[in-house]
Amino acid sequence: MIRLQIAIQLDYEVSATGSDFVFNIHAAQTARQHVLDEQLTLSQPVAYRVENEPSSGNRLLRFSAPPGQLQVNYRATLDVHHFIGSPELIPEVPVAKLPPEALVYIYPSRYCPSDRLHQLAMREFGSRWQGYSRVQSICDWVRERTTFASNTSTSQTSALDTLLDQTGVCRDFAHLMIALCRAINIPARFATGIDYGADPALGPTDFHAYVEVYLGDRWYMFDPSGTAIPMGFMRFGIGRDAADTAFATIFGSVKTHAPVIDIQAIAGADGRLRQPFHCGRALSTDG
Amino acid sequence: MIRLQIAIQLDYEVSATGSDFVFNIHAAQTARQHVLDEQLTLSQPVAYRVENEPSSGNRLLRFSAPPGQLQVNYRATLDVHHFIGSPELIPEVPVAKLPPEALVYIYPSRYCPSDRLHQLAMREFGSRWQGYSRVQSICDWVRERTTFASNTSTSQTSALDTLLDQTGVCRDFAHLMIALCRAINIPARFATGIDYGADPALGPTDFHAYVEVYLGDRWYMFDPSGTAIPMGFMRFGIGRDAADTAFATIFGSVKTHAPVIDIQAIAGADGRLRQPFHCGRALSTDG
Amino acid sequence: MIRLQIAIQLDYEVSATGSDFVFNIHAAQTARQHVLDEQLTLSQPVAYRVENEPSSGNRLLRFSAPPGQLQVNYRATLDVHHFIGSPELIPEVPVAKLPPEALVYIYPSRYCPSDRLHQLAMREFGSRWQGYSRVQSICDWVRERTTFASNTSTSQTSALDTLLDQTGVCRDFAHLMIALCRAINIPARFATGIDYGADPALGPTDFHAYVEVYLGDRWYMFDPSGTAIPMGFMRFGIGRDAADTAFATIFGSVKTHAPVIDIQAIAGADGRLRQPFHCGRALSTDG
Amino acid sequence: MIRLQIAIQLDYEVSATGSDFVFNIHAAQTARQHVLDEQLTLSQPVAYRVENEPSSGNRLLRFSAPPGQLQVNYRATLDVHHFIGSPELIPEVPVAKLPPEALVYIYPSRYCPSDRLHQLAMREFGSRWQGYSRVQSICDWVRERTTFASNTSTSQTSALDTLLDQTGVCRDFAHLMIALCRAINIPARFATGIDYGADPALGPTDFHAYVEVYLGDRWYMFDPSGTAIPMGFMRFGIGRDAADTAFATIFGSVKTHAPVIDIQAIAGADGRLRQPFHCGRALSTDG
Repeated sequence: MIRLQIAIQLDYEVSATGSDFVFNIHAAQTARQHVLDEQLTLSQPVAYRVENEPSSGNRLLRFSAPPGQLQVNYRATLDVHHFIGSPELIPEVPVAKLPPEALVYIYPSRYCPSDRLHQLAMREFGSRWQGYSRVQSICDWVRERTTFASNTSTSQTSALDTLLDQTGVCRDFAHLMIALCRAINIPARFATGIDYGADPALGPTDFHAYVEVYLGDRWYMFDPSGTAIPMGFMRFGIGRDAADTAFATIFGSVKTHAPVIDIQAIAGADGRLRQPFHCGRALSTDG
Repeated sequence: MIRLQIAIQLDYEVSATGSDFVFNIHAAQTARQHVLDEQLTLSQPVAYRVENEPSSGNRLLRFSAPPGQLQVNYRATLDVHHFIGSPELIPEVPVAKLPPEALVYIYPSRYCPSDRLHQLAMREFGSRWQGYSRVQSICDWVRERTTFASNTSTSQTSALDTLLDQTGVCRDFAHLMIALCRAINIPARFATGIDYGADPALGPTDFHAYVEVYLGDRWYMFDPSGTAIPMGFMRFGIGRDAADTAFATIFGSVKTHAPVIDIQAIAGADGRLRQPFHCGRALSTDG
Repeated sequence: MIRLQIAIQLDYEVSATGSDFVFNIHAAQTARQHVLDEQLTLSQPVAYRVENEPSSGNRLLRFSAPPGQLQVNYRATLDVHHFIGSPELIPEVPVAKLPPEALVYIYPSRYCPSDRLHQLAMREFGSRWQGYSRVQSICDWVRERTTFASNTSTSQTSALDTLLDQTGVCRDFAHLMIALCRAINIPARFATGIDYGADPALGPTDFHAYVEVYLGDRWYMFDPSGTAIPMGFMRFGIGRDAADTAFATIFGSVKTHAPVIDIQAIAGADGRLRQPFHCGRALSTDG
Repeated sequence: MIRLQIAIQLDYEVSATGSDFVFNIHAAQTARQHVLDEQLTLSQPVAYRVENEPSSGNRLLRFSAPPGQLQVNYRATLDVHHFIGSPELIPEVPVAKLPPEALVYIYPSRYCPSDRLHQLAMREFGSRWQGYSRVQSICDWVRERTTFASNTSTSQTSALDTLLDQTGVCRDFAHLMIALCRAINIPARFATGIDYGADPALGPTDFHAYVEVYLGDRWYMFDPSGTAIPMGFMRFGIGRDAADTAFATIFGSVKTHAPVIDIQAIAGADGRLRQPFHCGRALSTDG
């Protein structure tokens, strides 16, 4: 069990016509991620609601903001109870055995057009031993070929672009890994959190995107960008790709400032501090 | 209320290694679509299951088939209770008021990259009166610009291709209309059924794809291909686009024959035959 | 006749491994563009050569530069003798009558994939009166739909992107217009020069890209970006699109500064200053 | 020296409005390809002309045909005098040393968007020994990864599609090899001829597309499809890609039948028959 304390500060300047916001910055509440306490503060007295998006369980914060400065603060303390498995014992699941809720994650999506990558994925990974290690090899392949570089991709960059340009940020690494997994019928989905443990040389603590792959009987975490420590990940949302898993979707003209984000491992109820570390085992925060 | 009787016959030759199948050819069971009776027959004694895909409610037929001939027969009788609205009274829903389950249908998907179409959709439809009539004008625009022609599109054809090539089949019309709606933040989804009332000159009765758009307080049907009679539509599945709403997804090498499909309006319990007809009102089969 | 005096200053920092340069910043020498004098200065004592690219006649400046600061200065005085035609008298040329050297300009190229735009161009322009006015209507259509905005496009932006995004710089306007012309078999090519008369609000005097279309018996100039005064254009190069008509192609790692460019109309031999102006007639500088 | 005799028969049905044709089915006349005799027969008494396209030297046959049956017959006897080099002695040419007429062949074109493939080409080939052998390894890489299959590509298929789909016909192999060469600044162009020596299992004798790469001081032939015997190639045309090197470009509605093509090595003036064979040396038919 890892206890994490997070703090997010988002600053906007809403233009004259006002804007509607949909955030996914509330920590997910799952069987393995317990939110102990959380606090949301808006700098403007707007009526907001927090709703569950039914297909994903993502918690959406929604409101309409009038013109002017807007600051959103979210703080939470949460316990992450990892399931820890042995990579060599975790098999892939034949399509015929996949649970129905995993099936949608083998289909192509906006940024993960896996139908275009079938031949390439078969060539690179088709003959590998099937199981967790094959997915790890996809993760390694993406990481090895792709250079992390800010401002090299846009909101239109798909996995095909990242395959060719070989550069991107965490979301691009995730899209490419997801697309390759789906291309050989392995369910893979997009997950969002915070880049716990990231090298400060890459910039301040930030939101993060990583991958969950369905293996054995659950979803396991992979971090193809390799920039952070997966054991320190907490989850905001899951989805097919960045299209349905954005931290913030804004309708209207808004000036956005860089987010200020903090994440710390803190001592648990027993007073012990368990620090996330790079570990070679298979991690899942799925139910 | 319309009572429909449908019959589907699908023929395959499964190659030596066997194949896994996922079908979505069971009539959806919704508040407005009652399945009175249904019957599934497989020509081989395979164990199958019918599962609900949780995010869509689609009913998935799944099984593994051994090599050899395979025939799938599905027959059903169902009552469709339409909600019928007055187009001029049906408003669009501001993003801030959309129910959370409708939100995912404003995001781009594999075949409906609506993020690429924002400027074009704003130019064409941005200044129109908002409401059902604006969506109808999108439907008409797609139909007017696009020619129905078999074998002009492939499994990789997206709404952008259809916009440029101006030709396609029902699925392509649907993708383009969906992408244009989403581009201006109107939730739109892909629905599958049978092309009731289609002109025989276009070929034998076939599966059909159409569009559902969230307006007022429910999803309304639109048929941008204009090839069939929406009042005669029954629903198999709904989804973001053809990627997650396929009639059949086949894993393994299979030779496929053309489906043999029949749909008839039949007399209801009161002995009256209510025949679907082209009607200028707004139709919904959503709960 | 317009006499123009141009001055170009380009500054680079060549990295440790040195770089090869190919410039196309020498004024073209054609039957209608006479270079009276010109002067090239390089801040480093490198051996350079100026060569004619045979298929285009473009004059290419080529050299290898060692590491360090590099400044390239080019100055020229030239007379442009326009052919001035009456738009209403200039016909399109049937494909069968096109001279062989114009044929290549009806084929698709990297940034002008006209094969993808045939249907759209036919719908928009197919039934218009054929002649200069149809080409003008393509030019107007592009200008009306597209917003000039710096840094909205990249070196990968094609005419299809500009069609969708409806924003770009002069090169993007030119690509879209060229692609639409070729899509209906009208030869169109990319031309480069300086944006004489551009609104200073768009930034300092800069390189410019415009379009030449083969009509009647020669190539006529069009400026779809509408940012400058065509009568003040001088020509560096022509080509199929920006791929083969770059001002500078650099092989190796180089830091590039913004160019400093000046263009002035000056008095001719007779002491008279003829100032370029926006004129409604058809202009050609083609031989 | 190889003496070749070729015969081409093309059959069309021109629709009611007539059609304009541009063919490139005349054997090129170059310093190393001598046309000894040739004969063109058209089944209709149309006025035609044969013109040189100036930038390529391709010989274009052009005419307008009235409605009805049209048969085009072209027969020629030609001598191909190969330059034969030793692969290990043929270097790549630094960009700074490329002749100006080769420069355009390092730029991207419609079907060879080499700008998109720079990273991938650098990864695969960037660190190889530079010279003929590196180009041969690109040729081998394309051949090894791509499956020859008719009707898997269309007139819109680019090198990126072939890279992903890993299937195509000779033109697709050529586009991918060209794009990869240009991506690392090696000039490469598209060449057309007849598939001398092709395996009859792939179909009857047909037109062929192959690649010429500028190395040392000339253009060398490569056949990435590997379906034919390069020593038996004669040249119709050269160009940037299939966009400007089509065998036939037809303007108007025409029904096209499969071409009937024959090519034979025949005895030379000395009575000796020199048969083309697969040879491991570098072949050029360039001046």
